[in-house]
Amino acid sequence: MTTLINGIPSDTVPVSDRGFQYGDGLFETIAIQRGTPLLWDGHMRRLADGCARLGLCMPAPDILLDEITAVCKGTERAVGKIIITRGPAGRGYAATKGMEQTRVVSHADWPVYPAGNAREGVAVHLCATRLGRNPALAGIKHLNRLEQVLARAEWSVDCADGLMCDSDGFVIEGTMTNVFAVLGGTLITPELSQSGVAGVMRAEVLSYARECGMGYSEEWIAPDRLRSADEIFLTNSIIGIWPVRILASRSYGIGETTHTIQKALEASQCYTTGI
Amino acid sequence: MTTLINGIPSDTVPVSDRGFQYGDGLFETIAIQRGTPLLWDGHMRRLADGCARLGLCMPAPDILLDEITAVCKGTERAVGKIIITRGPAGRGYAATKGMEQTRVVSHADWPVYPAGNAREGVAVHLCATRLGRNPALAGIKHLNRLEQVLARAEWSVDCADGLMCDSDGFVIEGTMTNVFAVLGGTLITPELSQSGVAGVMRAEVLSYARECGMGYSEEWIAPDRLRSADEIFLTNSIIGIWPVRILASRSYGIGETTHTIQKALEASQCYTTGI
Repeated sequence: MTTLINGIPSDTVPVSDRGFQYGDGLFETIAIQRGTPLLWDGHMRRLADGCARLGLCMPAPDILLDEITAVCKGTERAVGKIIITRGPAGRGYAATKGMEQTRVVSHADWPVYPAGNAREGVAVHLCATRLGRNPALAGIKHLNRLEQVLARAEWSVDCADGLMCDSDGFVIEGTMTNVFAVLGGTLITPELSQSGVAGVMRAEVLSYARECGMGYSEEWIAPDRLRSADEIFLTNSIIGIWPVRILASRSYGIGETTHTIQKALEASQCYTTGI
Repeated sequence: MTTLINGIPSDTVPVSDRGFQYGDGLFETIAIQRGTPLLWDGHMRRLADGCARLGLCMPAPDILLDEITAVCKGTERAVGKIIITRGPAGRGYAATKGMEQTRVVSHADWPVYPAGNAREGVAVHLCATRLGRNPALAGIKHLNRLEQVLARAEWSVDCADGLMCDSDGFVIEGTMTNVFAVLGGTLITPELSQSGVAGVMRAEVLSYARECGMGYSEEWIAPDRLRSADEIFLTNSIIGIWPVRILASRSYGIGETTHTIQKALEASQCYTTGI
């Protein structure tokens, strides 16, 4: 069994589901280790925030936990995914009363990334595809992902991810990661008030920086400024932290700040990729 | 029978379909009169443009025509809908070779709008929800429709549609319509190079204006400028043309230009709503 739809094993949804018709919903991608979801509270917080922003009902976290545990049972490591949509409906953008949301909980195999990604760093593409700016959708992990699909089609091999700028030209995030840099001794990461996804691993890095008194700030970052950084790294819930070794033909070492954060988060067991 | 999926009667799609996972696809909504799709060539042109822009294969129009005729058979008037997605796939935004697109052709009842909408005009809401700017997605009718869903939730009754501005504050379109205005004797409609859907009925209006020597232009239009117009009207393939009677507390008459275009398009039988 790999997928539960509203609690029932199935692998199809109605064609009338507003997730399919309009991308009217949210998702979470969660690392599962020996049956236990990592950073569960962070994923639930973001999902609840997304539900509030889109006017959806937040499902009971206990039900989601039971279901994700069930679909990932018996796996050493797995990727759990939750999708919440506004559910099946008739024509038109208006949501009507009495609609029943769709809840999809599924399992995928743990991805096989090169073992060196976390230790030696990765090469990163700078995407031409931009992110539109819309505060109504910024930060949440919604199902409207065409910008990421188009950006991901820009490169085929050799790059672990691609960084995207918004329509004003500021670096926001990777197609599947958030980005951090160390610049003049300060940890910085892009401001996400206008676009981008506020990653759960990103929040974990910021929380760690706060707790240990490491200075950091969320800023508007132009590509040239990012390229001039001393250290750059990428984060998400599945990969943990990947240092950036190459960005747009420039090389970077794995600096002390990146290494310190990697070790701290690995010790906190919030991700499973070895350093 | 109301839905064909890849030519086979069905009403479900795989949960792994990229239309459901990412909104990775396109759609067309088409007026069908006594079994015949109206403005068929225009719909096929826009779908082909969308496929080229998203890197999808354009289905053979003959197959689409056969299928939409089949699902709408026996109806006096109906709304035909075509959805094309990149199809079912595994995790990740990257499209891989050998993926099989999903083709959904379905039928819905003709909507019951008040008979006076076309004759006497409609009230229109000015939405607070904005449209992000992204030339990669502007103009095409893609499946990422959360902005329209959020905008449509802003009003409940009394308004026939809501006009949306982009993130720079320019009026772009209604949630389900394009907008035109007559200002200083010239027909104007918003520039759609950064956001919005280039409607098939919009193209028909511009084509008529061109053919009969009526001056027109596509422009960046601020809300205050739109409000100062002499005439405003909305268009789409299903409604045809609805004059705007009230926009944000200001009233408008049905002017000569609006009435002339309504009569001309009705005479050309590209829409079925009576004036």
